[in-house]
Amino acid sequence: MNAILDEALFCHVGFSVRGQPFVLPMVHARIAEQLYIHGSIASRLLKRVKSRVNVCVTATLLDGLVLARSAFHHSMNYRSVVILGKAHELTDEAEKRLALTALVEHVLAGRSEVVRGPSKKELRATSVLRLPITEASAKIRGGPPLDDEADYALSCWAGVLPLHLRAAAPVPDPQLPATTALPPTLAAWSRGRASP
Amino acid sequence: MNAILDEALFCHVGFSVRGQPFVLPMVHARIAEQLYIHGSIASRLLKRVKSRVNVCVTATLLDGLVLARSAFHHSMNYRSVVILGKAHELTDEAEKRLALTALVEHVLAGRSEVVRGPSKKELRATSVLRLPITEASAKIRGGPPLDDEADYALSCWAGVLPLHLRAAAPVPDPQLPATTALPPTLAAWSRGRASP
Repeated sequence: MNAILDEALFCHVGFSVRGQPFVLPMVHARIAEQLYIHGSIASRLLKRVKSRVNVCVTATLLDGLVLARSAFHHSMNYRSVVILGKAHELTDEAEKRLALTALVEHVLAGRSEVVRGPSKKELRATSVLRLPITEASAKIRGGPPLDDEADYALSCWAGVLPLHLRAAAPVPDPQLPATTALPPTLAAWSRGRASP
Repeated sequence: MNAILDEALFCHVGFSVRGQPFVLPMVHARIAEQLYIHGSIASRLLKRVKSRVNVCVTATLLDGLVLARSAFHHSMNYRSVVILGKAHELTDEAEKRLALTALVEHVLAGRSEVVRGPSKKELRATSVLRLPITEASAKIRGGPPLDDEADYALSCWAGVLPLHLRAAAPVPDPQLPATTALPPTLAAWSRGRASP
């Protein structure tokens, strides 16, 4: 489960307001057995539900299209983690700082050391939720399609189309001086995450 | 919104059971203003909530990492759609057949014409939900980081790392005769979806 959470760049957070579920993409980072989630929605969400809320956090990695010989057995290869529990808003400044560092590092290792860290004002303006990874489950589908015995005689192509998240060439900020070097972690990014 | 829904290969469906939200990955397909969702969970979900259920369906496409000069302004470029409403279970066999065809075509155009279609038994064993796309919103973030004025003087690299879903070489089913030709739509798949 940790490997899936660490590889996923973002997750979907579900919460319920008066019986209506909402599902929103948010970024996350794991520190040991705690998941930290952050997004522009966090503050709006927290306004409604005060400082604790039942959530479901789901992170899904798509690994491929499973093309079977019958429509019925078409599927996808994927890895997903579902975490249930109560999320708490961080109030302690030191923990908030740790969580924000982890969130930046989760996106790109080493990044937090080269950028300006959060000011006190920015810390106050940022809502981060902490969810203990205690009630969690993982689901993984891998391998070829599983067809009905009789369908193996059909002549259509069957198998898996593997899918990966790949990085294209980094696009420098238009205001960046042309002499600014590209960090090696960024140039190497696609290797780290995209291997099968 | 249609473009995002059509490009996304799967979505996350949120529903609530006695105050506990659940978020699960499911495949979807759009026909005009209706979204059809399908997954192994559908039947379990429907057992609990009978034939109608408040859901939130969210489809998110990750387009890139936004690397700002401050930790605070780090972000992601993405496109997402959130649909709220009541999902209904399909009971009409003809509509179920249409929806299942759309679900297979959504994964790979032309696929439904070459595979064995669903039998009556398979149709009965398959739960498909229909959600009208009436209460929906899209959110898109694109472009470079937006830094605080003072931070533009910092020397760290800033910009966007574009990310795309790419297909690797198709992996034939181990039981596939070596003479079976690869469908052209499959060989071309990565071009269709992965352009920026």
